[in-house]
Amino acid sequence: MALEEGRAVTRTASASATEKLLLHHKEKHFTAGDVVRDVIMGVSDGLTVPFALAAGLSGTSAPSYLILTAGLAEVAAGAISMGLGGYLAAKSEADHYVRELKREEEEIVTVPDTEAAEIGEIFSRYGLQPHDYSPVVNSLRKNPQAWLEFMMKFELGLEKPEPRRALQSALTIAMAYMVGGMVPLLPYFFIPTAQKAMLASIGVTLTALIFFGYIKGHLTGNRPLLSAIQTAFIGALASAAAYALAKALQAA
Amino acid sequence: MALEEGRAVTRTASASATEKLLLHHKEKHFTAGDVVRDVIMGVSDGLTVPFALAAGLSGTSAPSYLILTAGLAEVAAGAISMGLGGYLAAKSEADHYVRELKREEEEIVTVPDTEAAEIGEIFSRYGLQPHDYSPVVNSLRKNPQAWLEFMMKFELGLEKPEPRRALQSALTIAMAYMVGGMVPLLPYFFIPTAQKAMLASIGVTLTALIFFGYIKGHLTGNRPLLSAIQTAFIGALASAAAYALAKALQAA
Repeated sequence: MALEEGRAVTRTASASATEKLLLHHKEKHFTAGDVVRDVIMGVSDGLTVPFALAAGLSGTSAPSYLILTAGLAEVAAGAISMGLGGYLAAKSEADHYVRELKREEEEIVTVPDTEAAEIGEIFSRYGLQPHDYSPVVNSLRKNPQAWLEFMMKFELGLEKPEPRRALQSALTIAMAYMVGGMVPLLPYFFIPTAQKAMLASIGVTLTALIFFGYIKGHLTGNRPLLSAIQTAFIGALASAAAYALAKALQAA
Repeated sequence: MALEEGRAVTRTASASATEKLLLHHKEKHFTAGDVVRDVIMGVSDGLTVPFALAAGLSGTSAPSYLILTAGLAEVAAGAISMGLGGYLAAKSEADHYVRELKREEEEIVTVPDTEAAEIGEIFSRYGLQPHDYSPVVNSLRKNPQAWLEFMMKFELGLEKPEPRRALQSALTIAMAYMVGGMVPLLPYFFIPTAQKAMLASIGVTLTALIFFGYIKGHLTGNRPLLSAIQTAFIGALASAAAYALAKALQAA
């Protein structure tokens, strides 16, 4: 009985009660900033491939300056490929969204019953019956703008992309890649003997990979230590493969 | 009047009518297979960076075999970085999903009113009132499993990842990268003079980039011609940057 009363009170308190609930109980779901995610992506790749390339070439007869040239050329090419490629991909995603939006908009006007049926189909996947969801459907039908946004999100799962994000993302990734790539290449600036430069590069880069992998794990909500080991492992494996391949080609 | 009758008839026909509507009116929303998307990603990158690296080094005094070594080392390192990196990223996404699932599961048990309030908050963004959505909320509250899945999808926007996809995706991307990378490097196998090999490489790779960009545009629902031009442009820009950089370093 007290429980019934409690529920009645909660329902009548309605708006203010729900607000209180939402404010007081702040759920800690992980949401990394887009910029952070782009930096992580860029630096991770930048630390790995230029490192592996330079280490691989250090096993050949190539002098330091040539290895450095190869490494820097790769960093430039990689940064452009990732940055520009990412930008154009984001732009085409935005175009895709606009096209899907127009299609849904048209369908809401021309075949509203089909669209309403689709909402029903989505809800029924959660065991909901028509008498549960038809007030929602009917209310949406009266508000075409809201109906459109609802279809975009719940039927197509498409989020509205922000225009400036594409450019910001591309620049962030490209710069992060360049910064990451410089780390393993710096020793080759200062140490003329390739093999010695490689040893320094290994030390510097593995340290950076471990450090960076740790941060990455922490930010993505995964175990930082595991992430550090995995990140360093990828770098080690990639450079070992490059080194072995270069040695094999030199012998051939 | 006739319209009212029409609507009444549609409503009473309920299930069979909606089924008919959904079957007869098949909407053509674009859904590329995951494998196709991975192949596109891998080949795109493989065509671009190894091409640019080799072209860049062709402007130095490095002989063909050394350029080939650098290119192949980069392909090996890049394939491992993309493949293994992608696999681990997918695995940690799956772990993230499981953690969020457990958190929601717990909250549904410990703070159900907060969770119900969250559903209400989501619906209210579409102009829906409590009297519209409370049948949905009440029905979900009675079915914790459905409620959980609903929260995962509509509050967190998280899809249930498939375990085998991570491995398949990694292997696909890595192999696609290697195939893509071989295209610009093949001329260096056969033509000992670096500058001549580079000319052949430019011809072969730009053709591949245009062809591939066209397919990519078609598959992603974007204008194929524009996609072809953009893809080729990225390759051209990346190789021009690598070439200019290598030339500048050689002068220094």
